[in-house]
Amino acid sequence: MKFLMEHESKEILERYGIKTARCIFVEDEDEALRAARSIGFPVVLKVASRKIYHKSEVGGVLLDLRSEEEVRDAFRRLMEIDGAEGVNVQPMLRRGIEVIVGVAEDEQFGSFVMFGLGGIFVEAIGDVSFRLLPIERRDAEEMVREVRGSRILFGHRGIGADVGSLVELLLRVGDIAERESVVEMDLNPVFAYQDGCVVADARIVVGERRKFEYQLPDLKKYFYPRNVAVIGASRTIGKPGFNIVWNLKQHGFSGKIFPVNPNAERILDLKCYRSVKDIPCEVDLAIIAVPAKLVPSVMEDCAKKGVKGVIIVSSGFSEEGETGAKYEREVIKIAKSNNIRIFGPNTTGVLNTDNNLISSFALLPTIKKGNIGIIAQTGLFLGILMGMIATNHPSLGFSKVVGLGNKIDIDDFEILNFLIQDEKTKVIGMYIEGIRNGRAFYEVARRSRKPIIVFKSGRTEFGKKAAISHTASMCGQDQIFNAMCKQANLIRVFSFEEMLNVARALSLQPLPKGNRVAIVHYTGSGCVQGADAAYLSELELTDLDDSTIRKIRSVTPEWHQINNPIDIWPMVEYYGVYKSYDTVIESLINDKTVDSLVIALWASRISDMTYQPDFKKFKKSEKPIYFVIEGFRDRVFELKNEYEANGFPVYPDIITAIKTLGYVTNYSLKKERH
Amino acid sequence: MKFLMEHESKEILERYGIKTARCIFVEDEDEALRAARSIGFPVVLKVASRKIYHKSEVGGVLLDLRSEEEVRDAFRRLMEIDGAEGVNVQPMLRRGIEVIVGVAEDEQFGSFVMFGLGGIFVEAIGDVSFRLLPIERRDAEEMVREVRGSRILFGHRGIGADVGSLVELLLRVGDIAERESVVEMDLNPVFAYQDGCVVADARIVVGERRKFEYQLPDLKKYFYPRNVAVIGASRTIGKPGFNIVWNLKQHGFSGKIFPVNPNAERILDLKCYRSVKDIPCEVDLAIIAVPAKLVPSVMEDCAKKGVKGVIIVSSGFSEEGETGAKYEREVIKIAKSNNIRIFGPNTTGVLNTDNNLISSFALLPTIKKGNIGIIAQTGLFLGILMGMIATNHPSLGFSKVVGLGNKIDIDDFEILNFLIQDEKTKVIGMYIEGIRNGRAFYEVARRSRKPIIVFKSGRTEFGKKAAISHTASMCGQDQIFNAMCKQANLIRVFSFEEMLNVARALSLQPLPKGNRVAIVHYTGSGCVQGADAAYLSELELTDLDDSTIRKIRSVTPEWHQINNPIDIWPMVEYYGVYKSYDTVIESLINDKTVDSLVIALWASRISDMTYQPDFKKFKKSEKPIYFVIEGFRDRVFELKNEYEANGFPVYPDIITAIKTLGYVTNYSLKKERH
Repeated sequence: MKFLMEHESKEILERYGIKTARCIFVEDEDEALRAARSIGFPVVLKVASRKIYHKSEVGGVLLDLRSEEEVRDAFRRLMEIDGAEGVNVQPMLRRGIEVIVGVAEDEQFGSFVMFGLGGIFVEAIGDVSFRLLPIERRDAEEMVREVRGSRILFGHRGIGADVGSLVELLLRVGDIAERESVVEMDLNPVFAYQDGCVVADARIVVGERRKFEYQLPDLKKYFYPRNVAVIGASRTIGKPGFNIVWNLKQHGFSGKIFPVNPNAERILDLKCYRSVKDIPCEVDLAIIAVPAKLVPSVMEDCAKKGVKGVIIVSSGFSEEGETGAKYEREVIKIAKSNNIRIFGPNTTGVLNTDNNLISSFALLPTIKKGNIGIIAQTGLFLGILMGMIATNHPSLGFSKVVGLGNKIDIDDFEILNFLIQDEKTKVIGMYIEGIRNGRAFYEVARRSRKPIIVFKSGRTEFGKKAAISHTASMCGQDQIFNAMCKQANLIRVFSFEEMLNVARALSLQPLPKGNRVAIVHYTGSGCVQGADAAYLSELELTDLDDSTIRKIRSVTPEWHQINNPIDIWPMVEYYGVYKSYDTVIESLINDKTVDSLVIALWASRISDMTYQPDFKKFKKSEKPIYFVIEGFRDRVFELKNEYEANGFPVYPDIITAIKTLGYVTNYSLKKERH
Repeated sequence: MKFLMEHESKEILERYGIKTARCIFVEDEDEALRAARSIGFPVVLKVASRKIYHKSEVGGVLLDLRSEEEVRDAFRRLMEIDGAEGVNVQPMLRRGIEVIVGVAEDEQFGSFVMFGLGGIFVEAIGDVSFRLLPIERRDAEEMVREVRGSRILFGHRGIGADVGSLVELLLRVGDIAERESVVEMDLNPVFAYQDGCVVADARIVVGERRKFEYQLPDLKKYFYPRNVAVIGASRTIGKPGFNIVWNLKQHGFSGKIFPVNPNAERILDLKCYRSVKDIPCEVDLAIIAVPAKLVPSVMEDCAKKGVKGVIIVSSGFSEEGETGAKYEREVIKIAKSNNIRIFGPNTTGVLNTDNNLISSFALLPTIKKGNIGIIAQTGLFLGILMGMIATNHPSLGFSKVVGLGNKIDIDDFEILNFLIQDEKTKVIGMYIEGIRNGRAFYEVARRSRKPIIVFKSGRTEFGKKAAISHTASMCGQDQIFNAMCKQANLIRVFSFEEMLNVARALSLQPLPKGNRVAIVHYTGSGCVQGADAAYLSELELTDLDDSTIRKIRSVTPEWHQINNPIDIWPMVEYYGVYKSYDTVIESLINDKTVDSLVIALWASRISDMTYQPDFKKFKKSEKPIYFVIEGFRDRVFELKNEYEANGFPVYPDIITAIKTLGYVTNYSLKKERH
């Protein structure tokens, strides 16, 4: 690593066409005077040192020096600072809007660029934006827009900046980072004017940049094996080795099942084998459910048999201390030298509704076949959460569900890559705790044309690195992850519930083409709440088209104001639910100012007070329609399942529905732009 | 309204002991020079005008003038500005941290004070805090701490400020506002130093301040009437006039019921009266369910009969245009001249579980008696939402539920005042859309020793006043409402669901004495999610006491790390749910480093895999214990109801539970301090 001094750093910037306050590095007083004279008063003197990172904190920046005497005095004071190697003399810049631009590296995601506004105050507030390098023009534009104080740049109280020049600066900084092998850069401050911008101070560190290597082998064969060996199969109901075989049989796995147990003849009426080696054909996939200490020898057997894929459901590995970690190392060694790929260990493994392959050791209810793929870094996903999802959302359909457990071999980005290519999968949901190869994840994810919903926990484990550069000190790991999500257009949610809300919408309905929503509610307060939620989700409450208002007028009393959100209650009172809802929904579908519909209704216990549309009619709509159903618990559940079985997602309240639509709309519009 | 000029404004400030950059107002060049000389160079010249609000936007502030020539030149330039009445000369202040302090008035809440940091940048970001006037020291302290950039003030990168002097400044500004009848004040900028602070620029507007008047009559008699007349009672099942009588009878209203209907003899076996006037005794409360156009004449009858309280459930008033508004005005007139108090119109009205008074026109399921009081500004609350709540949370108990409808007379603050005094009510939940007399609401609410949970919609209706003063331009109505919530220690939530989550916790469990939470989960990912949620809710994940760890060690395998959150799965695998959960919960209750417990468990379909504690044992705990139950839908619901019937609130996931605890803890700690 090489720390460049300010004048060296600025030379590089100038070479790439970036305007800087060019400085003259001087080591004695007379030199300083000559420099000041050649620049012209007033000047700025700054201490020059490879060791001092925050010059102003040590009084190392003296501004607006207007005479030779002031320059002499300033030079002497600066040279007295501990670590001073010399002094930089530069012109006093006219005051502009202070901006900070930086580059640093993240362990998981590598090189990134930062943009911030306003010097130390805004630094304290953390009003900065990040993107992984390399960036494109739209990334740079988003970075500038994204900071909270951006309206200062776009013009506020008579101040404003040449935003184009800042975008250009960011692009060039990205370019420099790439070509000059920059590991850290701080341009702080940069002054932004109405005509361009000038870098007032700069610090660059060059060195070897982090490299991220990975491969993307085809995992399809492990999801579509011709047969499966269950090693550690058991006759005892409730034991993992029994449950796995039961699940495979019960859910109707389309291939052959070979239970392996040296002490049993048959399990669930299937012939048992003493060892995987005794199975009389090639084995495509082995599910291993023996105690951890036996797994290495089972892996040896698999290697001998030529098995190329295993799911280790057993726990007792690195998560359980040193002994387990030893087994884990042995397993990895055997796998590596025999080209065996491993799911797990410590996981419920894989569910594929296409062939009913299932490795979960928990007895599962029926999981509906559908287009949602799930990747979860939690051992019990297919055990507990999947049961919860299936019973709460029985109309929701899944393609593949993959639990990753300890991830000693197959990593999330590999599964992600598989699901992106999987024809049966339309929507991908991921639960992530830690990421090992973030760069690989990013590169795979950003190529996806399918929506990817991400729920990441462990947000508060911020990096604890020493704050050397401004840029590095301002980035929590979560902020980099968040920037990555934006850049790859991932839908970042903050709970499993939100993930399922968004997944249901994407699974069942088309994407909206714009952000103009029409909201219908049967109470005034629901309308107000919907309007609030729309505002917070950056959805626009479109003014309805005149023809729409005319159509709705036919089912509403004279005095009723038709606004968006539409309070449908007065219509229902006069014309009943069917006429009111049908008329309103149909006219909104045909309104060219509307991109999406959110319709709330009341699940009365009296049937003809409850709206149940002719679903087929609305299915042709190219605009997404989400419903909200409120009322007595059982009735709501019943209706929700019916609506969802017919292709329309149902949410428990207007706020949740609008928030979900907000996530989907943001994704859709960014996808259009990308 | 009188706009004071800068030098006049500063004179007032100085009189109250606030340090200002004292300025000399001059009207010609020579005067300016004399002023500059007497102050000593460098000086600042600023345009003086009652018409120019943002001097720097028009180039009206010239800093750091170091010579007579510069002063002359500056004076001339400033006098050329449109509207210039003269020039202020003042000393150039040393650079400090820029702060803004202001006073303005809000329509609903009256006079308030604002604090912000960092001049125009932070203004653009909106990093400001508000409090209603008058303020106490703790309010001023909170205001300073609350701004996002406050760490600059408390010391960051070698910079810091005398926070005490800023608190003092805020208190004195409040004092001035009160005594000098200030309607607007902008102190902008104020420079904060490590030794005190100085007001660099000031602008004060004096005038008549908004007054808020209200009374707090006793409403108890309307909640505890000896009898009720139902005017517009009907024999037709499903009609409002039938449903009300049915509800009163079915839920067992403790007083007498007098149906009024000129065409019926008996309704639901109760004798009917032709008019309220025919009822042979004093009538305490009338529920009016006739069409809007008949309500005025019914009101006349009530007046004649001497009825002092009515609930108008009928709709068709101002919400339905001009004709309805006319009826409304007539009704108000009759009520005023006969001292009749009105609930509604357009509301489901009142439910009192103490005497089973109920005016809802929707047939309601059984509502459990309990300690939660609800006030809702939505007509259909007791119709739809209450049915939803009762079926989703059958173990939740209510004292009074009040729907306010159009609020033409009885206002939310009056009901709030009643519930604060009501012995049966321990927790108050409010749904608010708009507030009429915000000051009354605030003054009533802040005196409450009972927790008040507030869900307000209509957040996005920002005030559209012209941005004259900085202070006024920076306050959205929602920000003032939010400040009011902090000041009165209201628990502000953002959905009905959150309101019910918090209400359940407060209804069933004691308040935590501190913010140190212990979390138990049966999955690693639940632990990570819990830790994230705790961090976001400002809860501390306490380090467990050694004795606790020793006790837990007795039910856990050797290799298992005991941290907080506690991953209980390894214990469950070895020792079963009962031994594991009992040991862990008991030791946490006895751990003096723990203030609250959140315990997650899995609702297995197998009974002895599901933890069902000896509730009585844990009920003695003075620390709140919340549970999370996850699993198959029906099983979860069954368990939740059992736990809640036994006094322990249950949440659907760890994030929701922790967030709820965060709300409650924040309330509890502030209550302690107040």
